[in-house]
Amino acid sequence: MSPLRATVNCDLGEGFSLYTLTDDEALMKTIHLANIACGFHASDFTIMDKTVQWAKENSVLVGAHPSLPDRQGFGRREMIMKPEELMSCFVYQVGALCGFLQKHGIVLNHIKPHGAIYGQTARSDVLARAVVGVCQIFSTIDHPVSFVGLAGTAHQRAAEDLGIKFIPEWFADLEYSQSGELLITQVHDPVKPDVIRDRVERLLNFHEISTNANTFIPLDYNIDEVTICCHSDTPGAVKNAELVKSIVDENNCRLSGSSV
Amino acid sequence: MSPLRATVNCDLGEGFSLYTLTDDEALMKTIHLANIACGFHASDFTIMDKTVQWAKENSVLVGAHPSLPDRQGFGRREMIMKPEELMSCFVYQVGALCGFLQKHGIVLNHIKPHGAIYGQTARSDVLARAVVGVCQIFSTIDHPVSFVGLAGTAHQRAAEDLGIKFIPEWFADLEYSQSGELLITQVHDPVKPDVIRDRVERLLNFHEISTNANTFIPLDYNIDEVTICCHSDTPGAVKNAELVKSIVDENNCRLSGSSV
Amino acid sequence: MSPLRATVNCDLGEGFSLYTLTDDEALMKTIHLANIACGFHASDFTIMDKTVQWAKENSVLVGAHPSLPDRQGFGRREMIMKPEELMSCFVYQVGALCGFLQKHGIVLNHIKPHGAIYGQTARSDVLARAVVGVCQIFSTIDHPVSFVGLAGTAHQRAAEDLGIKFIPEWFADLEYSQSGELLITQVHDPVKPDVIRDRVERLLNFHEISTNANTFIPLDYNIDEVTICCHSDTPGAVKNAELVKSIVDENNCRLSGSSV
Amino acid sequence: MSPLRATVNCDLGEGFSLYTLTDDEALMKTIHLANIACGFHASDFTIMDKTVQWAKENSVLVGAHPSLPDRQGFGRREMIMKPEELMSCFVYQVGALCGFLQKHGIVLNHIKPHGAIYGQTARSDVLARAVVGVCQIFSTIDHPVSFVGLAGTAHQRAAEDLGIKFIPEWFADLEYSQSGELLITQVHDPVKPDVIRDRVERLLNFHEISTNANTFIPLDYNIDEVTICCHSDTPGAVKNAELVKSIVDENNCRLSGSSV
Repeated sequence: MSPLRATVNCDLGEGFSLYTLTDDEALMKTIHLANIACGFHASDFTIMDKTVQWAKENSVLVGAHPSLPDRQGFGRREMIMKPEELMSCFVYQVGALCGFLQKHGIVLNHIKPHGAIYGQTARSDVLARAVVGVCQIFSTIDHPVSFVGLAGTAHQRAAEDLGIKFIPEWFADLEYSQSGELLITQVHDPVKPDVIRDRVERLLNFHEISTNANTFIPLDYNIDEVTICCHSDTPGAVKNAELVKSIVDENNCRLSGSSV
Repeated sequence: MSPLRATVNCDLGEGFSLYTLTDDEALMKTIHLANIACGFHASDFTIMDKTVQWAKENSVLVGAHPSLPDRQGFGRREMIMKPEELMSCFVYQVGALCGFLQKHGIVLNHIKPHGAIYGQTARSDVLARAVVGVCQIFSTIDHPVSFVGLAGTAHQRAAEDLGIKFIPEWFADLEYSQSGELLITQVHDPVKPDVIRDRVERLLNFHEISTNANTFIPLDYNIDEVTICCHSDTPGAVKNAELVKSIVDENNCRLSGSSV
Repeated sequence: MSPLRATVNCDLGEGFSLYTLTDDEALMKTIHLANIACGFHASDFTIMDKTVQWAKENSVLVGAHPSLPDRQGFGRREMIMKPEELMSCFVYQVGALCGFLQKHGIVLNHIKPHGAIYGQTARSDVLARAVVGVCQIFSTIDHPVSFVGLAGTAHQRAAEDLGIKFIPEWFADLEYSQSGELLITQVHDPVKPDVIRDRVERLLNFHEISTNANTFIPLDYNIDEVTICCHSDTPGAVKNAELVKSIVDENNCRLSGSSV
Repeated sequence: MSPLRATVNCDLGEGFSLYTLTDDEALMKTIHLANIACGFHASDFTIMDKTVQWAKENSVLVGAHPSLPDRQGFGRREMIMKPEELMSCFVYQVGALCGFLQKHGIVLNHIKPHGAIYGQTARSDVLARAVVGVCQIFSTIDHPVSFVGLAGTAHQRAAEDLGIKFIPEWFADLEYSQSGELLITQVHDPVKPDVIRDRVERLLNFHEISTNANTFIPLDYNIDEVTICCHSDTPGAVKNAELVKSIVDENNCRLSGSSV
């Protein structure tokens, strides 16, 4: 079995105006990748500046987390958009984030769609191509931009078609059905540390997804990297992320060692 | 008298949703510099994409035209913003525009503030430094970003202090008071072609500003480049811009000839 | 055959900020009912005040024309909303319009949903009940609020269930398929006056809808009132509306005469 | 000394989308008047519906708390608005709130401007008349609408001129300067219960404002009613409000008793 390298990612910078959703500064210390809101479902220019600064201070790789244009609905209401309209919608948001990256002297690592459009693009090849195409626009020879999405969906197909690196995402604090389908919840219930530890170790050591029927589903053979999402609004978010990061760091360390 | 090189600039892409304000496609053929709205006082991601495409097709140099966050007021209502807040507000907008420039493979030429914040930054050194600082953020060694603003104001001082190229703006279709002050109008009256021709030729040949008292005020000695704004919403905008551009092109051609 | 009373309605006040979409002041003279935008797909507080004033000056009955919260998409992109969310969305907009009605001393006559949510509520009984329920909230004993919508759809069923007067809408400048389905277009083509005249007279005199196959479909037996929509953005909108209004006024006059 | 009747008021419903600012449900139990945000600096149609419902359940009198159109700045950035523009801005918001009041079967009690426009209208007679004029629009014979504002400012003058009942507001958790000027803070420091008790009792029993120089300034002779604002975002907000309400209720009870 080939080794599975992993990272921990979190959606951050999702406050707005006076409002705070999570402890972004603390979470930034427990992750490898930050998906930063771009002002369409959450965040604004003041919060984006601060969030990017925190990412830089913690050497966290920054991805854009663009959304449908729906701040009042937090980007969680499906909207019908044409592919070219959606592409422009994402170009605007990713460009805006890149302005702050340029200010702080760091580069864009990846793009991960937010909320309803995450699901819509996973199901539609034409919408997926539109948003993965935005990775192409922002990629340079030195700094290619990856796409983070759901394995085995239009996300992965579009990335492979367009020659964009695909990083499959797996959720430590959500359940998967017996058939391997992610069970998305509006409000995330707390999950016990032991359960999270078991799931993550099963994933990293056996390349298997734990289901809510206590069965295990093997991952796609071709995947050698995965990013584990820790929701910032699940109760105990910081503790969870710390736990997952410690397991992941140990795993990656072992992989590096074995590769010598 | 040193020769005065000139360009014609116009604020474009100021539609929104279904709304159109001016004939952007036609105006794009009559100018050298386009100041493109960035979505805060006008425009949206779909219109920005099209506007940048038209600029590219006509080899027009693209500048960002960022605004206060006030779409309903078209960025024409003064708002009190802190300097760092204003800087982030502009970084967001300029970054978003740069996303579309990257899509179409062109670079950012300049920044010109829109509406109320144009006046506020001309009067306040601390606000001017905040927005001129955004030129620094988006400048690269190969592609420095200029600042277009009002000569003799905080605009010019901030640009000189921060080492950013300053391009003074002069208005062909507005009047200047006897003391040389620009008389800004909400609704722009039509101006006769002869009047425009006289003003522009006086500016280019004698380096003098025509006032509404039929007197002439000499320009600052150190200026060797000026950009002439043609408002897109003045009656006869396209005709005016064509006229000014023909005078300017002839002038620049003569300068190039004499420099051989 | 029972006589069919008719009115002409038009969606008005759909400008925003500096933008104008149609000649609202002229159109206000050619209609009986104005469906006034409430700030979510178009309009703003300044435009609403003026639009209501024009309606009052022309003794036009005012209806609310609420939308999905999608100004950039002009309310034309379907969005998934829960019924209670949609009801609150409409209560907010209708309430805001009623503020201006109160200022100008007139009352709310009807509600007609705008754009995508017009279609969504026509197809969904649960969404239709949510928006027709808003008519109940704003009805008083002296001034009941009607619902304008598509005959034979969830619109009509919800109104009948909730005891709200239903006014079926018929479109003079759009085509109907052979099966009687309204063919909605994004950009409305011009329609010849003769065609419009024939369609309207057929409707009023024979209670039949003209289809694009040159056939005629009888209207529902129970309908004794219809409102004819003239789009404000169809080329020749004012002329069309004048024509339809003259036919309708003559028809209503005849009905009044015969009823004596 | 004439007795001084008092109420406790609080700005509520200031969440947005997923965001919560304060424990509105708990605060609603500790006040007499709720100033409810109307969607321009905070709140949205879903939150407004729930906030009005909570007010009704607790028999709290509802006022509108309209703002400048500046959600990202939480209505705390001064904006230049013309009086008629500001009036329409407020008519829209107050109307929207009244939609929810109508839904829940309660009436509008008062209007209190929010944030920057509270200060701007206190200083400008022409702006004050614009917003107090909105009380006139929404007043009926049975239900006149009061204006809550700063005593001795344009607020009071405009209300007296326009025949609108004026309720002066006094702040339990802010300091007053030796000259009696309210010292507004962006972030409100916690205040000790004893200090609050002393201030409130001094106000109610001696009609004097406590200053930060430990001196006391007599209130205007003509005032026989005051409303005491408890900020919802001061640390210990619920405890503070409970304390102030208990003192106030006891005071009012005594007044009622003495009037027998």
